[in-house]
Amino acid sequence: MITINGERLLADLYDLRKIGAFKTGVHRPTLSEEDMVSRRWLCDKLDAFGHGAEIDGIANVIGRAPGKGPHVLAGSHIESQNEAGWLDGALGVIYALEAARAVKEAGTFGERGVDVIAFADEEGHFGNFFGSYSFLGELSDETIDGAMDRTRGTPLREALEKAGLTGRPRRQIERGRHSAFLEAHIEQGDWLEANDLTIGIVTSIVAIWQFRIVFEGVQNHAGTTRMAIRRDAGVALTELCHRIHETFPEVAAERSVWTTGRITLQPGAPSIIPGRAEMLFQFRDADLAVLERIQAHLERLVAESNTAGPCSARLEVISRAIPAVMDGRVQDAIETAAEQIVPGRHTRMPSGAGHDAQNVARHLPSGMLFVPSIGGISHHWTENTSDQDIVAGGRVFAAAIGELLAAAE
Amino acid sequence: MITINGERLLADLYDLRKIGAFKTGVHRPTLSEEDMVSRRWLCDKLDAFGHGAEIDGIANVIGRAPGKGPHVLAGSHIESQNEAGWLDGALGVIYALEAARAVKEAGTFGERGVDVIAFADEEGHFGNFFGSYSFLGELSDETIDGAMDRTRGTPLREALEKAGLTGRPRRQIERGRHSAFLEAHIEQGDWLEANDLTIGIVTSIVAIWQFRIVFEGVQNHAGTTRMAIRRDAGVALTELCHRIHETFPEVAAERSVWTTGRITLQPGAPSIIPGRAEMLFQFRDADLAVLERIQAHLERLVAESNTAGPCSARLEVISRAIPAVMDGRVQDAIETAAEQIVPGRHTRMPSGAGHDAQNVARHLPSGMLFVPSIGGISHHWTENTSDQDIVAGGRVFAAAIGELLAAAE
Repeated sequence: MITINGERLLADLYDLRKIGAFKTGVHRPTLSEEDMVSRRWLCDKLDAFGHGAEIDGIANVIGRAPGKGPHVLAGSHIESQNEAGWLDGALGVIYALEAARAVKEAGTFGERGVDVIAFADEEGHFGNFFGSYSFLGELSDETIDGAMDRTRGTPLREALEKAGLTGRPRRQIERGRHSAFLEAHIEQGDWLEANDLTIGIVTSIVAIWQFRIVFEGVQNHAGTTRMAIRRDAGVALTELCHRIHETFPEVAAERSVWTTGRITLQPGAPSIIPGRAEMLFQFRDADLAVLERIQAHLERLVAESNTAGPCSARLEVISRAIPAVMDGRVQDAIETAAEQIVPGRHTRMPSGAGHDAQNVARHLPSGMLFVPSIGGISHHWTENTSDQDIVAGGRVFAAAIGELLAAAE
Repeated sequence: MITINGERLLADLYDLRKIGAFKTGVHRPTLSEEDMVSRRWLCDKLDAFGHGAEIDGIANVIGRAPGKGPHVLAGSHIESQNEAGWLDGALGVIYALEAARAVKEAGTFGERGVDVIAFADEEGHFGNFFGSYSFLGELSDETIDGAMDRTRGTPLREALEKAGLTGRPRRQIERGRHSAFLEAHIEQGDWLEANDLTIGIVTSIVAIWQFRIVFEGVQNHAGTTRMAIRRDAGVALTELCHRIHETFPEVAAERSVWTTGRITLQPGAPSIIPGRAEMLFQFRDADLAVLERIQAHLERLVAESNTAGPCSARLEVISRAIPAVMDGRVQDAIETAAEQIVPGRHTRMPSGAGHDAQNVARHLPSGMLFVPSIGGISHHWTENTSDQDIVAGGRVFAAAIGELLAAAE
């Protein structure tokens, strides 16, 4: 079994936390100065034990193990959301760093080792998983040309140039180099904490199905238009929300989630009956059959609203992803490691959030492990995990990599 | 009975429609170039038959009858909403112009006549009934100092200066000069049309009670936060909307109306559970007891939502006006005139919209008459009324003024 140095792991994480510190969290948006400082810091750490590291043309950091392989690819993302938590992404990168170092130090795997990767922009400041898409050969130059920072409006090309990355090649995955991919992450929910568990073995990453629901009525004067003749698009919308709230539990699965994130009434004035109303609605599940069952139900509710009137209602699909199933053997490797290190304190569970592993899973046998989030908090600077859980997660992560490297013999 | 010239009335209305024409409606926001052209046009019309007219320091147009009085004050507003209808306001001004002209031509009322007024900014581009408040001595210079155009952001002082009105006095009502105030307006609803009627005699102008309802929950990740532990402020809001929709008919009166004009979920992102939600809600009725009953019910619903959880809910009062009762003798004068001109085709009814008459009613016996709006449409450039109804309304308006002048002997 690979043995990591827990103190060194924590020291690295705490050092990284200082870069772009914001309250008890960090502010390291993709390609910001703080982000680039953290990427160069990571390169230095990788170079220090002979993993030739580079920042490529999309800002992915790649530290290559010296042998011929097959290696395990491991990592996550290093940038943060704006003014957000210190572990989201960073934890998985430092686990990979420490595991690579520990494998090197063990010296028992011959040509095999751990390639470490810190994907750029998993948090979507400029787009949608640009780092992993680029690494997997799924990101075009045209998409990069058109992208800009959602908060600051800076074009991605300009941000890349300012970061000194213009002209650098975008590195891509080499066929046959890796036997598996492993990513660790904070859970971002409260399931592990609520059940007094230390390790979540991800079975699949849920798919998000996103919809826009549009209601068309008749805009009119809110004082002179009698209730009986109104065609208030806002009322049609809130009544549909009520039907969703009332009936979704009947068709959803145990871990399905559904959310109305935005409601817009037009024109949105206090004394005007809304003539048009829109809602952004999404649901998530790890099971394609459940997703399809939920959509069929949603279609029924929208059709009922449309038929009942007095407003028209229509459902527009924004996106429907396929759930990413994690590789069974990688799950087994994590479970074996977890049972050795935290016996009985691990569980298999889906991931409700998206991660780079969902993309890598199309190319390599992939797996993920979770450690508990205190209070289930994430995407906020108060996000945290106990040192004890961090170290336990790092041990399981490295031990699982040991299992995978041994199996690849 | 006063006899008006129906062709002249229509010709004036159609001429006014050309100023700031927008599709089949008009665009004459307060103090815009088009608005000022229309005010000077009205002054010329008034001067032409000896009603010394002026535009005062707030842009009210006042055309004074030559005699000592007591006069009837008559008019409405001449500016339009942005890109809106051609009759909203303009109709009442031209009715007053034609009635004043006809009274002058009749030559049978001695010292008595019709003062014509076109109030500024009834449509609220800069504020809230600034023209009538100013005329009634209820508008401070400080309020003017702080006002700016809601669409364009121009300070009112700057707009007044650009219109050449800086330094002009703001004229105020003279105690004892008038025996009554009469305003005509398009109905802006479909009651007259639906009941095949020509004249609405306004009994009272409904009061608007406006509220903000605020829900506080917990913002969280829409993928990783289980349904069971969510505190989704948006769901709390739409459930309250459902309760309003379901139960308001039980407590409201026949003509009560209620409207949710705006809903805001925060942060309003597709993948974030709203931690805060707000709605702008209003209801209207002409009966204070009904308004109070409705508010008590709303308070109950909000308290129920708050008690049931999982989000807090609170009701904030934005404004609560008092319904403006129209003077009984003025109503009788309109009814007498209507029964002569359109026998059996008139009804007493409340006004669901606000009008300058609600302010003037605090100072003078006041009344309003409505003519039908085709399809009930208003606040839109397609707003319209048939020429036949326009002329019939003008006849009733002038005849009612004849009744009031005769009664003031």
